[in-house]
This record gives sequence, C-alpha cells and structure tokens, in this order.
Amino acid sequence: MYFLGIDLGGTKIAAGLVDSSGRLLVKRSIPTKRERPFQEIIKDMAFLAQGLVEEAGLSLAAIQSIGVGSPGTPDVKNGVLLYNNNLGFRNVPLRMEIQRYLPLPVHLDNDANCAALAEGLVGAAKGVSSSVTITLGTGIGSGVIINHQIYGGFNNAAAELGHMVIEVNGEACTCGRRGCWEAYASATALIRQARAAAADHPGSLMLALAEGDPAKITAKTAFDAARQGDAVAFGVVEQYFDYLAVGISNVINIFQPEIIVIGGGISQQGEYLLSALQKRVAQEIYTSNINNLPTTQLKVAVLGNDAGIIGAALLGFTAGQRRGLTLA
Amino acid sequence: MYFLGIDLGGTKIAAGLVDSSGRLLVKRSIPTKRERPFQEIIKDMAFLAQGLVEEAGLSLAAIQSIGVGSPGTPDVKNGVLLYNNNLGFRNVPLRMEIQRYLPLPVHLDNDANCAALAEGLVGAAKGVSSSVTITLGTGIGSGVIINHQIYGGFNNAAAELGHMVIEVNGEACTCGRRGCWEAYASATALIRQARAAAADHPGSLMLALAEGDPAKITAKTAFDAARQGDAVAFGVVEQYFDYLAVGISNVINIFQPEIIVIGGGISQQGEYLLSALQKRVAQEIYTSNINNLPTTQLKVAVLGNDAGIIGAALLGFTAGQRRGLTLA
Repeated sequence: MYFLGIDLGGTKIAAGLVDSSGRLLVKRSIPTKRERPFQEIIKDMAFLAQGLVEEAGLSLAAIQSIGVGSPGTPDVKNGVLLYNNNLGFRNVPLRMEIQRYLPLPVHLDNDANCAALAEGLVGAAKGVSSSVTITLGTGIGSGVIINHQIYGGFNNAAAELGHMVIEVNGEACTCGRRGCWEAYASATALIRQARAAAADHPGSLMLALAEGDPAKITAKTAFDAARQGDAVAFGVVEQYFDYLAVGISNVINIFQPEIIVIGGGISQQGEYLLSALQKRVAQEIYTSNINNLPTTQLKVAVLGNDAGIIGAALLGFTAGQRRGLTLA
Repeated sequence: MYFLGIDLGGTKIAAGLVDSSGRLLVKRSIPTKRERPFQEIIKDMAFLAQGLVEEAGLSLAAIQSIGVGSPGTPDVKNGVLLYNNNLGFRNVPLRMEIQRYLPLPVHLDNDANCAALAEGLVGAAKGVSSSVTITLGTGIGSGVIINHQIYGGFNNAAAELGHMVIEVNGEACTCGRRGCWEAYASATALIRQARAAAADHPGSLMLALAEGDPAKITAKTAFDAARQGDAVAFGVVEQYFDYLAVGISNVINIFQPEIIVIGGGISQQGEYLLSALQKRVAQEIYTSNINNLPTTQLKVAVLGNDAGIIGAALLGFTAGQRRGLTLA
C-alpha cells in the first residue's frame, strides 16, 4: 500500500510517493505560480501526483490516499483550506477539487504539523508516542504529536508555538503580537541580531566572511565566525541560544514530550546546537529538581525538506490507523 | 457507583464522596500536620475516606475507587508520589500505603490536574472534549484536558503553564526561572504589584481600604479600589489583566482548547475579569484574522474549592471510562 503526499508551498509544489514504512520512493516538484486561481493550482497538484504513480509503475488502486500539507489553517474534517495567507486562499475546497481528478481519499493539514508527523512517526522521534517538532526558518514552524497523532486543538489551529510571547511588549512579530518566540529565535531573528551586532562592531569576523556586506550575513555566518573565535559572533550566538532555550524550556514545561526535534537550517549546527541547548534547558525546566524523572530529549531533524511531503502522505496513515493500519 | 476523592494539601486533607454524575455528596477535612511521617498522614487519609463511606450509609462494595490529588509530580502508573515539596515527600508509595487500609483501586494525579478534570468533566467546561483550567492563587495552577482526559506528558509532569516564561530575565520565580507567567499573573503577583503601587502613591484608595497598612492590601483591595474609580488601582488592575491576557493568549495559540476555565480567588471578579480578558485576547490570538473559525471561550470556574476533591474522585471515572463507564 502506498500514500501520496503533497507539500503546497508559496513558490513550489512538491509531491512524493511514500510506502507503508514511511519511505519516500519518488518525488517531483513544480512551481506554484501562486497568482493563478486555486482551481488551476489544485489541478496541477492532482496531475503531479498522478504522474508519480505512473512513474512508479503503479496503478491508482495501489494508492491508499493523498495528503496535502499547506501553510495556514485547515478544516481537517471537510478538507477545506480555510486560510492560507501566502497563496491568498480563503475557504478553498481542496478535497473536492482534487477529487475532480483523482478518486482517492484526500487528507489535509498544516505543513508544520505534517513535518512534525513525519519526524514523529518515521524520523528523529520514531518509536515514541509524543514529540514536538520545531522548525527554525523564516519563522518558527511547529507541530505537536500526541499518541502518534497530530494535536490540532478543537479548531485545528493549535501548536503555534512560535507565537508564544516570551517578552511582553518585545519585538514586533508578523502575527501582530509583540515579543513572540519567533521574533527572537527564528533563523530570520538570528540574521537580524547578527547584522545589528556587525553594524555595531565593524571589526567582527562576520563582516569579513560576508565580503564586507552586512546584507550578506546569514545565520551560518554567525555560527562560522563564532566557531572561529570571533567574540562578537560568539556573543550573538550565545544570546540566540538563550532565546531558543527559553522557548524550548517553555515547551517542555507545557508538553513534556518524550522528544523535541529541531529542524530547519539552524539544525545543521548539530551537536554544537544540541549541547548548547541541553546545558541551558537542564537548568530551566520545572522538573530539574526531581531525581530519577525521565526528561525530554533534544534531537535534530533527520528528514530535511522531505518531512513535509512524507508527513502529508502519512496523514493517510494516521487516518487508516483507526482502521488497524500499522507502519511496516 | 460512587468514587472517593482526596485533596492532599499542605495544611489540610479534604475528602469527599462523589456519585456517578460527578456530584459531591459529602465531604470532610482534617489538618495535614505535615511534619509527620508519610505513613501517618496516609493512614489518616484512608480513615477519613472510610468515615465518609460510613457517613453516607454505604458499604465499601459500592465504592469504585479512591483518587488522590496532590501538589507535585506523581508516578501515575505505579501510584507513587515522586515529589511533593510542600510535604517533603520523595518517592512515597501512596497507593500501597492506602491499600493497607482500604482494598480499593487507588488513582493519583497532580492537584491542579484534578481541578482541571473536575471543571472539564462536570464543571465550567462540561460537555466539551478539550479544556484548560487555570487557577490563579499563590501560584498559577493549571491542567489540560484533551479528549476528556488529563494530559500529563510522557512523565506526568506536563501542563505547568505558570512556568512558561513571558519576560526573558524578568521577575524571579519560585521554580528557579526568571520571568515565569506565574510571577506576573498569580494572585500573589497582583498583591505585590498593588502594594508597590500603593507605596509609590500613598494617596491611593487601596491604602485607605487597607486601613493604611500596605501589608493588608489584598488582590480584592486592588479590584475594589479600581471599581470605585481609584486611578492607581485601575492602573494596577489593567496591567495585571495585560499580563494575564498575554499568558492566556499563549495558551490559546498553543492548545486551542474549546474552553479555558479561570479559577482561584481572582475568578470571583466574574464578568469584569472575563470581559477585560476577552477584549485583550481577541486582539492577540493567532487566529484573530481568520473569519468563521471558532475560537476558545473563556469561563470562570464553577466548582470552587471542591474542584480538587471532585477531580480526584473522577480519576476513577476516567480510569473506568476505558472499560465503558459513562457519567450519569
């Protein structure tokens, strides 16, 4: 049995075919061309998926379902994308439109939830029942897995962990609040912090690594300069770790998941990142003074950019689980 | 069928008998005398519970189970109280000790989780499957109900919502962190804020209502003075609402529960409190710009101090639910 998964992004649509062990067999992507009417975009999604089935030498009868992960807020039950700011979608009947071309069950969820489902079922948190996946990118994407399933709240809009205020009246956030964790601990925030520090300290190695152009400073620049002993970059990175650890400690005090998975570009820092966070989190969490209580493990994501496709495909698996389906 | 519930506090032990509709039929309390060995305290708990059964004219055969709510961290599975700072308990085998006197199934959970279970099943959030109960008192107690059950995380230490940092490097919290929500939005925090404002503004009505003694200013003093038009008290209360709303908005963005129940002494402010929070929360939550999406309702708690007893008793109900038990 196979599952189709589609990651609907603002610039590209990525689709893949996943087997019953959660392995991604084949994938392809096309540009979204988001200025088009939703009917055309969804038609492209359906044909992209159909092409994958043919490419794999399968028939539609071998496909269990098709799942779609999208930014924004889904009506999971009715398969309607209520809100996707990026594509300008409001109340788009995604399931119905896809089924005009493909006679398959269609599942829909938020893209960060899909990534969390993939890491939770077949990625870095495989084998445990509860995990939280935090993706550090333009913003902070997040998804919560409880009992092997996405936790969506009563309106499927839950798990917006990046929009937890950690600094009252702090930095403005894209969501309209001030002081959100995302405004301090996303990759975008780190870049802003690094550029500000480089502007204040023109002698910083960060500027040299960026060919003297502050606009070329990336998150990686800050990490590279810090590892090479630049004090300014080291200060930036340490402060960034502080902000990241405050939010992760909050998430632990709130959810006590067995594993927290950290993804996105920042997670390429691997052990350097993990050990910096572990040290801070161990001092902050509420259970730090209880002997012998198991505590949340921090891990880096393992599925990379494929997490969205795999998780979207696995929406069909979790739906099927209620009918006794198990991962091979 | 009846359920026994015990609320194990630092100063008193309160016990009650609850029927299969969640109604509290009879209750009694005794002093904890916490300086005693745990064996003696638990023996008193067992005899207190047994007395209630006799008082109700029942036999033990009519009792489904006994549940205990305690501050601290329980090992729910093994019925061991791992950590209760207030009583100095470490790894106390509560189930085993109670069963020396009463041959009944013994369930154990955190006291704030028990209060949340009671409000969630038979209180202010009766009838919905997901709710969060926030108790504003000395600290901020909190419990999360998902699918009609307590959410405890993988180590039963979850839902410490009061220990979510809302102000990096802010006020010191009893938990060891800085800037926890509890340090800004508990009743204790409001009292501290009111006393500080009264010290800065000796003409404030708060001081007059407290007989000129700042130490006599309570949370109620601040609300009373604000309602009577005192500008200083009004400022204190408005700022307190801001802090409270920041945390509640975080909880909504994180959990999207159908209902948030607010309990503790502060909740006696009723509609005044609710309308102040609703106004703020509506602007802060992530879903504020999505039309037609249902949003979390705020309600005040209805079970008062009995929530702990009732919830402890209902631990036996949720355990029995898996065997098909339903509330009458």
